Amino acid sequence: MFSTELANFFPIWNKLTDAQQQRLITAAEIRSAKGGTVLHNGSMDCLGLLLIRTGQLRVYTLSSEGREITLYRLFELDTCLFSASCVMPDIQFDVIVEAEKDSEFWILPSCLFKDLMEESAAIANYANQLISSRFSEVMWLMEQIMWKSFDKRLAAFLLEECALEDTMSLKITHEKIANHMGTAREVVTRMLRYFQSEGMVNLTRGTVELTDKKRLRQLSEK
Amino acid sequence: MFSTELANFFPIWNKLTDAQQQRLITAAEIRSAKGGTVLHNGSMDCLGLLLIRTGQLRVYTLSSEGREITLYRLFELDTCLFSASCVMPDIQFDVIVEAEKDSEFWILPSCLFKDLMEESAAIANYANQLISSRFSEVMWLMEQIMWKSFDKRLAAFLLEECALEDTMSLKITHEKIANHMGTAREVVTRMLRYFQSEGMVNLTRGTVELTDKKRLRQLSEK
Repeated sequence: MFSTELANFFPIWNKLTDAQQQRLITAAEIRSAKGGTVLHNGSMDCLGLLLIRTGQLRVYTLSSEGREITLYRLFELDTCLFSASCVMPDIQFDVIVEAEKDSEFWILPSCLFKDLMEESAAIANYANQLISSRFSEVMWLMEQIMWKSFDKRLAAFLLEECALEDTMSLKITHEKIANHMGTAREVVTRMLRYFQSEGMVNLTRGTVELTDKKRLRQLSEK
Repeated sequence: MFSTELANFFPIWNKLTDAQQQRLITAAEIRSAKGGTVLHNGSMDCLGLLLIRTGQLRVYTLSSEGREITLYRLFELDTCLFSASCVMPDIQFDVIVEAEKDSEFWILPSCLFKDLMEESAAIANYANQLISSRFSEVMWLMEQIMWKSFDKRLAAFLLEECALEDTMSLKITHEKIANHMGTAREVVTRMLRYFQSEGMVNLTRGTVELTDKKRLRQLSEK
């Protein structure tokens, strides 16, 4: 049961030796964290690989002035690699990982992960895949920032949040949207008011209600 | 002699078996390219790993409107991984690699690289290091774009170009600077004129001469 569940997280489980599988099973620990908990904070931490059973993690960076931008989210069955980035010396940037919702995950200690990467080509290639996927998400984000204007990015953000929360009425502050998107609160407020004047959203205290999803989608896809 | 040179490119050469070393030596080919040659163009190509003996490569992306941004440069002894990205299915973005100066490099065929990654943890971890380093460079760039204003980025760009070319007088068009930085020519021209009015550069046709390196450095480091 235990090993069946861990196996689900590793597309390459069957390429591991029995001994390697056993070491993973022995070392893995289940933990849970409340929404809002910071799980990994840059180079200060080295918790290990996190295999998400339930919940949602957010990975973001901070500017020296304390502004945030969300790089990507991780969901059920995803693996968080950067919480083990201490064992990868060529990763020369810091990210912060927080549980965005109440989450439950396995932790595989960084040192075990390092040992397995060194002895198993399958595990090393698996790490490779994880880095490549995250790199692809960051490239996508950079292209959005470079080439898409803010109205399109904001429309896409609102649609994605609504899909994630399965609602048409987002409980989120302008400040929080600004943190996700790496911009200032005033910029978000100004654009949301424009969206409201165009009938695409309806703003009330602490809530953004999407009133014309179709137009928002057209805008985001331009 | 031949193997000594290849060994210089691989920090992990001694972790390979004699047979693996021999396969690399047999498969490696020397090529050269004139400055301006495109070596790899997104997912259409799969040339292989490029080990740079001399010269300079530029790796960049293109927006759908044809605007460019330089992601990073590669120099002597660097390895270009993305020209072999076809063997890494989780790399889901396209980059273009061009020889920015006349260059000479070894090519290691993608299929051999793939085979070696699958059988050797050392090679897989080496690929891992390469991806991590490039990822770090792109994260650095993204942070610059997000948090630094354009005047600071332009000052840093001019200083870096001068260091690369070992000159105080850059032969470069405003168009080309715009392509490196992912912006429009007009934006570059406007800022260069401001730099000129402040006595930091002197503009003549096709040339940007740096006249106050110290102030440019102060600006770039703010």
